[in-house]
Amino acid sequence: MSDVVNTLEGWYSLHDFRAIDWNAWKSLTQQERNRAEDELYSLLAQYQSTEDRKEGSTAFYSIVGQKADFMFMHLRETLEELNELETEFNKSMFAQVTVPTYSYVSIVELGGYMAKPGVDPMQDPDILARLKPTLPKAKHVCFYPMDKRREGNDNWYMLSTEERRNFMRSHGMIGRSYAGKIKQIITGSIGLDDWEWGVTLFADDALQFKKIVHEMRFDETSARFGEFGDFYVGNLLDRNKMEAMLKL
Amino acid sequence: MSDVVNTLEGWYSLHDFRAIDWNAWKSLTQQERNRAEDELYSLLAQYQSTEDRKEGSTAFYSIVGQKADFMFMHLRETLEELNELETEFNKSMFAQVTVPTYSYVSIVELGGYMAKPGVDPMQDPDILARLKPTLPKAKHVCFYPMDKRREGNDNWYMLSTEERRNFMRSHGMIGRSYAGKIKQIITGSIGLDDWEWGVTLFADDALQFKKIVHEMRFDETSARFGEFGDFYVGNLLDRNKMEAMLKL
Amino acid sequence: MSDVVNTLEGWYSLHDFRAIDWNAWKSLTQQERNRAEDELYSLLAQYQSTEDRKEGSTAFYSIVGQKADFMFMHLRETLEELNELETEFNKSMFAQVTVPTYSYVSIVELGGYMAKPGVDPMQDPDILARLKPTLPKAKHVCFYPMDKRREGNDNWYMLSTEERRNFMRSHGMIGRSYAGKIKQIITGSIGLDDWEWGVTLFADDALQFKKIVHEMRFDETSARFGEFGDFYVGNLLDRNKMEAMLKL
Amino acid sequence: MSDVVNTLEGWYSLHDFRAIDWNAWKSLTQQERNRAEDELYSLLAQYQSTEDRKEGSTAFYSIVGQKADFMFMHLRETLEELNELETEFNKSMFAQVTVPTYSYVSIVELGGYMAKPGVDPMQDPDILARLKPTLPKAKHVCFYPMDKRREGNDNWYMLSTEERRNFMRSHGMIGRSYAGKIKQIITGSIGLDDWEWGVTLFADDALQFKKIVHEMRFDETSARFGEFGDFYVGNLLDRNKMEAMLKL
Amino acid sequence: MSDVVNTLEGWYSLHDFRAIDWNAWKSLTQQERNRAEDELYSLLAQYQSTEDRKEGSTAFYSIVGQKADFMFMHLRETLEELNELETEFNKSMFAQVTVPTYSYVSIVELGGYMAKPGVDPMQDPDILARLKPTLPKAKHVCFYPMDKRREGNDNWYMLSTEERRNFMRSHGMIGRSYAGKIKQIITGSIGLDDWEWGVTLFADDALQFKKIVHEMRFDETSARFGEFGDFYVGNLLDRNKMEAMLKL
Repeated sequence: MSDVVNTLEGWYSLHDFRAIDWNAWKSLTQQERNRAEDELYSLLAQYQSTEDRKEGSTAFYSIVGQKADFMFMHLRETLEELNELETEFNKSMFAQVTVPTYSYVSIVELGGYMAKPGVDPMQDPDILARLKPTLPKAKHVCFYPMDKRREGNDNWYMLSTEERRNFMRSHGMIGRSYAGKIKQIITGSIGLDDWEWGVTLFADDALQFKKIVHEMRFDETSARFGEFGDFYVGNLLDRNKMEAMLKL
Repeated sequence: MSDVVNTLEGWYSLHDFRAIDWNAWKSLTQQERNRAEDELYSLLAQYQSTEDRKEGSTAFYSIVGQKADFMFMHLRETLEELNELETEFNKSMFAQVTVPTYSYVSIVELGGYMAKPGVDPMQDPDILARLKPTLPKAKHVCFYPMDKRREGNDNWYMLSTEERRNFMRSHGMIGRSYAGKIKQIITGSIGLDDWEWGVTLFADDALQFKKIVHEMRFDETSARFGEFGDFYVGNLLDRNKMEAMLKL
Repeated sequence: MSDVVNTLEGWYSLHDFRAIDWNAWKSLTQQERNRAEDELYSLLAQYQSTEDRKEGSTAFYSIVGQKADFMFMHLRETLEELNELETEFNKSMFAQVTVPTYSYVSIVELGGYMAKPGVDPMQDPDILARLKPTLPKAKHVCFYPMDKRREGNDNWYMLSTEERRNFMRSHGMIGRSYAGKIKQIITGSIGLDDWEWGVTLFADDALQFKKIVHEMRFDETSARFGEFGDFYVGNLLDRNKMEAMLKL
Repeated sequence: MSDVVNTLEGWYSLHDFRAIDWNAWKSLTQQERNRAEDELYSLLAQYQSTEDRKEGSTAFYSIVGQKADFMFMHLRETLEELNELETEFNKSMFAQVTVPTYSYVSIVELGGYMAKPGVDPMQDPDILARLKPTLPKAKHVCFYPMDKRREGNDNWYMLSTEERRNFMRSHGMIGRSYAGKIKQIITGSIGLDDWEWGVTLFADDALQFKKIVHEMRFDETSARFGEFGDFYVGNLLDRNKMEAMLKL
Repeated sequence: MSDVVNTLEGWYSLHDFRAIDWNAWKSLTQQERNRAEDELYSLLAQYQSTEDRKEGSTAFYSIVGQKADFMFMHLRETLEELNELETEFNKSMFAQVTVPTYSYVSIVELGGYMAKPGVDPMQDPDILARLKPTLPKAKHVCFYPMDKRREGNDNWYMLSTEERRNFMRSHGMIGRSYAGKIKQIITGSIGLDDWEWGVTLFADDALQFKKIVHEMRFDETSARFGEFGDFYVGNLLDRNKMEAMLKL
């Protein structure tokens, strides 16, 4: 089945959404808050250093609305590393004042890859850069999980390879028309989490998230076959912004 | 695709629903309650001042039933400002006795706009007043999120532009027949939150909410294509009413 | 659209379901329990006095099973009054040992009213008694919310007025065959809460709830078009029964 | 409508599922634990005595997995008695260390009864024994609620009486083939709780639960018309087993 | 019905997922943490000893993401033993710092067994090894529950035995192509828990989970008839890894 063969996978991914328990944060002493922030910034520095060594990548964003206060998107070589990141965060003092609200386990994937005989795609620097990417530092993020529908006449998995390829081609063309405005990371989660794919969009203008998802919804691939989970949008965080956020 | 082109967007919007933890409120000392109320009224004054400067708008309503005790609807120029409003509220003493129950992230939108060559709609004062509105101070509010259905033969996104335009025209005529009784703000949330649109209605007579939603339900646009989330209704709040509500 | 025109509305309604936190109740001192009960009975007396003045009506029932321990059904002229009832209860000492579990906001409605020219139905004492009723003191209550289905070929809102009228006629005949056994209050909640109608049944023999809902389920109106929410059943409460319930 | 007429009802039923809060249990002193157990065993004795007087029946089972730690199935003559059982349990010291997880309100029912002229079925000892049964003390229990489907062409309530009778006949034959292995109590909950029926199976060999439900699923009655809720399985409890379970 | 006859059952199974309450863990004294760990490792040793005696088997894995921190999969001869395992764990000091998040009750099953006259399959060592297996110590686990769909034209239980056999044959062929990469344990839960089957996959390369589930989704058995619950993935745990995870 060619589109099984043609899917390439890179780093494993963990989206980790958390709310801040503000009552707990305020109940700490100033000294405890200092220590909690120090531990957090030291974790951020450690994520950066992993990214610098090209051994993974981490995005850090606030989330607008009550679904979460912030999210990490961690990319790493193995599921074990993702597990260790979680555990290390959970043991930190800052974690004590946070509440987990949602997480997503997946793996960076590149669909529709056309294999050439005798060529190992994992040796191609362009492909490698897409499978093991350094996540952008765009001003805004948008994350949502999705499925391909399997209902009555709208059953994606009953289509022929040819039909699926045609649908995906026009879908991809909409995506490409947003090049320069939106950077998109597709992570596959079949067999790993509750939806089939996670879509993470990065943009400096959050309105582009609305425009691309709206435009795609009229495309038959989404209109007939797309099932969407919850949407999360947020703003880029860094140490300075986090300090401002946490300052009482 | 003309209805993509023709949609105009204005201020970002955050609906923020919260319950009061009455046990926590009662467990504060009178002095703490005074301080909590002072902080709340100071935030209300600040929202008013932003509205006076035309840099945003905020509606403040109680909610009937157990879904929430009150809601803020904040309109601001950027997602960052909405995030800061949330964080500032969360840090306040009053927030300590509240529990978040629901939120909605969207952006004020004007659909079906007919672009004229060489005309920038954002220079048109009428359009600007609808995209960056001062929210009404009507006695009652009604909020609900909604989707357009994508099921079998009732798939809105598979209709032609012409069909959608005809459906929306008759739909809009019902809306216009409530002019003077109901003020309606449509906010788009595709790519921003879990439903596609948020509908916020303002009226001095709450019965009009029932009448318009009921009448529209027989309209084919809603009957075949409308999917509705939870409905919230409430009464206008201001400092005096809030003081009465919080007085033990 | 005649069935819009022909629907009459009366008092607003709030169903308020609550569980008792027995651990919290037992942790109060006897003196605190006395004060909590006194406040509760004083609220009950106040609801009775509103009912005596024909300015509203309140039903008070225990609920069987874990969904709640008791419910109030309050009818009042305005949404503001319902909000005040909630807030007043929330501030009471008894409320401290209760947990809200479900609520429903609606308005008493009379469907299928045939308007006669020159006649104001709100001047007709029979109609007024149905729109602004004194709730029965039957031994048992049954509450459930419901929708009319909008799915494929079973779309109530795509039927003609004539078809809907015929369906409702046979539906109403089943209802009438339970006259004397069941007293039914229909409250409309389109635009006010998550379902379209709330059905509250009162009977001295709880088995009649099963019989009428079962019989109606074979009626095409319910069989093809009825969607039902959760069902709550309970037993009449008054001060004496509440004292027995709360006695440790 | 003959299957309305032909349904007989007996005792009301309350399934009451609860988890043990082990941290709370361990935090009690030995003396408090003794008192809590004494109160529990005294309630068990009281349920037994009601059963001995043929005024009701109670089954007591542990539940496997995290859905609950134990369940009571209480049969009594009235809803008021079920309410009093709940309240009495809630006031007990043992209840302080339990958390309600699920409950179900229904009434023992006998479907398809063929009335003979001039014969009162409630005078027939065989029928009475099925409507007001003493619950078995089998080693295992299985409980699940269910609905008859009302979707498109698979709408049970749109079938003719004749069609339903034929479906139920073949369904009943599977049931009878398990006689001696499984004892089944059907309780009706239309108008009383969220599903239409509760099925409680008793067996000494838990594998029979899997076999009967599996076999029935291929029967058209279940295959096309059965909608199933959560399944609970458990093991018989008595005072000795409960003492072992609670011993620290 | 041959596929009822041909299903063989072995050990009962309990999947038990739990999160660690890190705040509670950190609030223990070092001495208490030592005692909690000792009790946990003593339980692990006991599970190992049961496995050594061939009286059951236990798998112990961490879980990636917020759904849980770890899971046990216990196989035992009876439901009573599973219940005792749960209760024993719940009473342990380590359990005090964990929160149950999900569980699944089922029984190891072997479908499509072709009975030979005069042969007792439970005497066949190969079959016994599959019905009462020692769970693998692969580096990764994947668990998900599933149903066969019963909707309109896609109703598995309305197919003929012949059709089902053909569907399962091609399905099984995909499974066999992963031999050596994935070890699969199918547990049946009809009549025991909320889904019809639990699928537990073991692999040293977690990517194989994605590949097999993806490939199978294009197989008509899954594409038209598979309904999937939540997916859990994790990494092998043992005493050393648990010590590292819990070390503060």
